[in-house]
Amino acid sequence: MRRRMIAVIGSGAADDALTAHAEDVGAAIAVAGFAGVCGGLGGVMSAACRGAVNAPSGPTPRTVAILPGTDTSSANAWAEVVIATGIGHARNLPIVLSADAVVAVGGGAGTLSEIAHSWQEGRRLAAYLPAGGWGEKIAGMTLDPKRPDSVVGLADERALAHWLDSLLCD
Amino acid sequence: MRRRMIAVIGSGAADDALTAHAEDVGAAIAVAGFAGVCGGLGGVMSAACRGAVNAPSGPTPRTVAILPGTDTSSANAWAEVVIATGIGHARNLPIVLSADAVVAVGGGAGTLSEIAHSWQEGRRLAAYLPAGGWGEKIAGMTLDPKRPDSVVGLADERALAHWLDSLLCD
Amino acid sequence: MRRRMIAVIGSGAADDALTAHAEDVGAAIAVAGFAGVCGGLGGVMSAACRGAVNAPSGPTPRTVAILPGTDTSSANAWAEVVIATGIGHARNLPIVLSADAVVAVGGGAGTLSEIAHSWQEGRRLAAYLPAGGWGEKIAGMTLDPKRPDSVVGLADERALAHWLDSLLCD
Amino acid sequence: MRRRMIAVIGSGAADDALTAHAEDVGAAIAVAGFAGVCGGLGGVMSAACRGAVNAPSGPTPRTVAILPGTDTSSANAWAEVVIATGIGHARNLPIVLSADAVVAVGGGAGTLSEIAHSWQEGRRLAAYLPAGGWGEKIAGMTLDPKRPDSVVGLADERALAHWLDSLLCD
Repeated sequence: MRRRMIAVIGSGAADDALTAHAEDVGAAIAVAGFAGVCGGLGGVMSAACRGAVNAPSGPTPRTVAILPGTDTSSANAWAEVVIATGIGHARNLPIVLSADAVVAVGGGAGTLSEIAHSWQEGRRLAAYLPAGGWGEKIAGMTLDPKRPDSVVGLADERALAHWLDSLLCD
Repeated sequence: MRRRMIAVIGSGAADDALTAHAEDVGAAIAVAGFAGVCGGLGGVMSAACRGAVNAPSGPTPRTVAILPGTDTSSANAWAEVVIATGIGHARNLPIVLSADAVVAVGGGAGTLSEIAHSWQEGRRLAAYLPAGGWGEKIAGMTLDPKRPDSVVGLADERALAHWLDSLLCD
Repeated sequence: MRRRMIAVIGSGAADDALTAHAEDVGAAIAVAGFAGVCGGLGGVMSAACRGAVNAPSGPTPRTVAILPGTDTSSANAWAEVVIATGIGHARNLPIVLSADAVVAVGGGAGTLSEIAHSWQEGRRLAAYLPAGGWGEKIAGMTLDPKRPDSVVGLADERALAHWLDSLLCD
Repeated sequence: MRRRMIAVIGSGAADDALTAHAEDVGAAIAVAGFAGVCGGLGGVMSAACRGAVNAPSGPTPRTVAILPGTDTSSANAWAEVVIATGIGHARNLPIVLSADAVVAVGGGAGTLSEIAHSWQEGRRLAAYLPAGGWGEKIAGMTLDPKRPDSVVGLADERALAHWLDSLLCD
């Protein structure tokens, strides 16, 4: 009965280009049939949620927000299932643990902590290259010898859709 | 867009009578239009999830599980949205923070910690009296002077349904 | 090499009588040779730390503070080793997990969550009766059937000192 | 009264060369007058603790361990103050939050998450270059635009001692 989920990780602030990329990623996740899980705040997080909710098709719910604070009302307006953790930035760990796979969309140091946790916890991990940031920097890298694979770099929306579809076959 | 949720807190082990009470509570939550959020494991948790999923009506999703461990596959079979926190028993806090209101169904020391967190965090709090346990023990009590109210005791399914309906008017 | 520690749990606000009781408990812990671990803020927490630091004898360090926030400077002035968890009230769990035994000094709902966690996690648990609060309420109780024992009630400073000494023999 | 602490972050497994580097770092921290705080397990963590305890001089306590699990007995043999968090890898956040500054000694993905958290939380951050790993990779980098500085690269023991001394002047 469990819904499959993809984590979108990225900055809490985003310019127009990054916002558009995050919306594209959110929409692609919904169309592929996954719920998107993220940190529930603004920037890449709200854009990905909005993209999922406005996508032409998708599951119910489409968005799951895992907040740092204690108040569910701090979630962005497109968050459907809202988890108020109360554990601050330590909530970066539950975000990636709850996902079948993780995609980085740009990102600063906070996103880098989520990339690192994803690797350490054995989650599939990709970076959406057009968004730049830490996602782009670590694409193609093997983060440590405990895993044989490397971070998947997704060059465009088509590569993203293909990667998402491949996850359904696991 | 946020779905309203009611937390069901109770033991990870349950005899037949307690299981039946938890199913009743889960079903009532769904019928009232709320998603049920719980710790995602067995006993009262799985029974409440099963009750919600098998209820004659309810929202989508009906169940949200907030697990202590790192593996989503440890959730019970009726959990729809599964959060793997990786923070062990500290996940008792996110369970109650994510809910609009909390209902205790029986319960031992773990449940007591959730009752206490609910009070401390300002969440509405009730106990389903037929289930006994710590819920019944603290019903009617004012847990500390920081709040003026007391823990609501729900005598039967009818009182539960009435209480759930009253929450919709907030 | 590990230093044995006793957790002191109690409210963040305390009147003169409760403050005096918390100082007594902190001092007794130090004199018995334990470090005191607490939530690091005010009320019972700061009084227990102050009592330990001002005791006629004790180990080094005498006080360990486990804060909810991200800033070590929010600890009280008598906290020697300061852990800034950043996980909010979820830090109630590490406080009791880090202790060989836990003593409740008064307490409201927050303290009750720590009492419950202590029981659930198998930590020895006592209440200092002169301080009242939830400690007094649960003294003598078996919180759930998973443990055969009951919460030890400590009637006065002499009983406290005796209990602390008995822990050294484990 | 708060003791100043330096976090040592690094892998739970270490070969002879990495072990020697971690011992050197632990010893330098103690000699500079700081307590060392780490994750409390093996590899770089136990070597740094051992180095601190065996250093010719240092404060009391010299080592603070912040464990992922619930059992204080899982700490390495040189850990003096032991915090059992019970929050798994989410304890990477308290490690860096509790420190005045953080030094990476080698490191895989787990260490990378701590590097990222250190940056995000505004902690001073250096990498001991002889140890390689993620520390060396991010030395000299500005991890995101939220801070103007860059990760300090420490070329050898002398540079480490100089950096530690400079922290005392803050």
